[in-house]
Amino acid sequence: MTDLNDLPLRPELRGKSAYGAPQLTVTNQLNTNENPYAPSEGLVEDLVTEVRRLATTLNRYPERDAVELRDELAAYVSRQTHVEVTRDQVWAANGSNEVLQQLLQAFGGPGRSVMGFTPSYSMHPILASGTQTEFLDVPRTGENFDIDVDKALAAIAEQKPDIVFVTTPNNPTGGITPVTDLRRILEAERAVGGIVIVDEAYAEFSDEPSATTLLAEYPTTLVVSRTMSKAFDFAGGRLGYFVADPAFIEAVMLVRLPYHLSTLSQAASTVALRHADETLATVAKLRQERIRVVEALANLGYKVVPSESNFVFFAVPDNADAHELWSRFLDLDVLIRDVGVAGHLRMTVGLPQENDAFLAAADKIIGEYK
Amino acid sequence: MTDLNDLPLRPELRGKSAYGAPQLTVTNQLNTNENPYAPSEGLVEDLVTEVRRLATTLNRYPERDAVELRDELAAYVSRQTHVEVTRDQVWAANGSNEVLQQLLQAFGGPGRSVMGFTPSYSMHPILASGTQTEFLDVPRTGENFDIDVDKALAAIAEQKPDIVFVTTPNNPTGGITPVTDLRRILEAERAVGGIVIVDEAYAEFSDEPSATTLLAEYPTTLVVSRTMSKAFDFAGGRLGYFVADPAFIEAVMLVRLPYHLSTLSQAASTVALRHADETLATVAKLRQERIRVVEALANLGYKVVPSESNFVFFAVPDNADAHELWSRFLDLDVLIRDVGVAGHLRMTVGLPQENDAFLAAADKIIGEYK
Repeated sequence: MTDLNDLPLRPELRGKSAYGAPQLTVTNQLNTNENPYAPSEGLVEDLVTEVRRLATTLNRYPERDAVELRDELAAYVSRQTHVEVTRDQVWAANGSNEVLQQLLQAFGGPGRSVMGFTPSYSMHPILASGTQTEFLDVPRTGENFDIDVDKALAAIAEQKPDIVFVTTPNNPTGGITPVTDLRRILEAERAVGGIVIVDEAYAEFSDEPSATTLLAEYPTTLVVSRTMSKAFDFAGGRLGYFVADPAFIEAVMLVRLPYHLSTLSQAASTVALRHADETLATVAKLRQERIRVVEALANLGYKVVPSESNFVFFAVPDNADAHELWSRFLDLDVLIRDVGVAGHLRMTVGLPQENDAFLAAADKIIGEYK
Repeated sequence: MTDLNDLPLRPELRGKSAYGAPQLTVTNQLNTNENPYAPSEGLVEDLVTEVRRLATTLNRYPERDAVELRDELAAYVSRQTHVEVTRDQVWAANGSNEVLQQLLQAFGGPGRSVMGFTPSYSMHPILASGTQTEFLDVPRTGENFDIDVDKALAAIAEQKPDIVFVTTPNNPTGGITPVTDLRRILEAERAVGGIVIVDEAYAEFSDEPSATTLLAEYPTTLVVSRTMSKAFDFAGGRLGYFVADPAFIEAVMLVRLPYHLSTLSQAASTVALRHADETLATVAKLRQERIRVVEALANLGYKVVPSESNFVFFAVPDNADAHELWSRFLDLDVLIRDVGVAGHLRMTVGLPQENDAFLAAADKIIGEYK
């Protein structure tokens, strides 16, 4: 029986395990920040029609630069962020992971570094390592896990990272980095000649203006990455994108795999964007539910981090172990996420009845620790 | 106006241009080795049904490890190569480019090297460069561009590459590397502790046994990569895969982006595999056409490299420039490929009428050089 250790694997990969939340079948699946509302019937019908039309062309390679999809993304970003952008400022790939990987290949890599403010999206350091980019970790501070901007500016000036990641709203903690703070970070990073990737995967759940409002001021420094997985109800479609000066799109075209986006991915995403208004109506519902969950959880006695996203990050009782608590929720048929931050767990806001199940479990569990 | 040179791009990317054949609209599109036969009506109907069923789940992440698709791929490989394999020996990604990139991330990378026998698939050195793997180039020899196996073994012993690529049938030249030669290369590479990736993108067009027949002998050394883009009539679906010992699948799971294969990609590929028999009937037609084109082209006075693939590599007349000839074909509404090998062009075998148009153009053009 051959073992992984029998293969000439790169040494830094030895002993690592594959990334990913457990894929368990549980009634209340509140662990991966998906939008719980299924695509509308109208969207499904349009998608089926489009697939039927395109299926007979599947023997041909897809349009390599996804021009029609990027037009549709640009129109959506223009409407949603009130910053007029065109296709030339938008790039798309199979999920924001691939978008970020391409940016790291072009602007990071061996001998270069990327700074992140942790805890944040756990794929950022993994993508850094996958592209041989050194990850510089600057911890967030306080019980709300905000970026200490003065500390961030000092770290940038001292360590001169080639790339800085700012996730806002931040995953897993839920809070935002205001545009005023982003501007200070952009100034500092521009001064050291690097770029800032603002990861706005959860932007639609917040009222804070998008970092796209800063693009005109920082054309050589700012990239805003986004995804259709969350607000957009399209995690299964795998479509991430970024918005930036056209020069950044030219840059990633040097490292992207040719024909990276299938005909079906391009078509399905284009159809989904045409149904943006009805899809985004679900975002309003989720924001209401988030407010309800945060309040109820606080009333139960949990310390809750303020959230502008579709998830809620909360502290476990003082004498409790986070992973043990995670298992207790699972026993009660509620799957949430232990993201590895001591004393904290993250729940995704789901349908009202799922949130009720979570809150009932949270009530029962906190009783056990009193 | 911001320019690419204003961005802190990695130095080795400066001055490069994006990979890809020109996407031009021409009556006879014979440049990217696609299968010219559109998917069958039965396949389209099954695909539409499956998309309708799955569309309502697109708000959820895809099954992360594509288990059902890998079962279907394993069944297909077992039937087609007569080597029984299971899901645990198969890995899938968005095109064979992504498959190869993952293998290079796990087994290549900075400080490591990959050897290729050129001319071969032009993405191999690009993928090497994208993963910071040194590319060691060993030229093929003779007018048929075969691998000189003695020279190859000497190069392996001397340069000790971490990875060796063997493309068979070779793109763009069309010939095969027989299994007996593969075995010698595998022995040599095993002796230096590296791995061999046999790229069988065009395997279904050849009668030579698949390298999968060697898997049991070389479990820690051999990976066989394949694609659904060519024989399988599915370039737009973007599905590549590899077959190897289960330990190799464990290895790439450490570097693959989570949820890399969308719900739609998995479903569409699974449906296409269930229609394998009718799809592969087109391969028989293309093989017949290839034989016809090779003969006719030789009769016109062109030197043609023997092909076991769905394309034909031929020498241009002695006093002609290959790129100029490529343009002449384009003038005559026939798009073929200038792959950058001096004095040679590559045409993809298309539908009978497309091949006729190519041959008529070839006839006209050779007359101009007499």
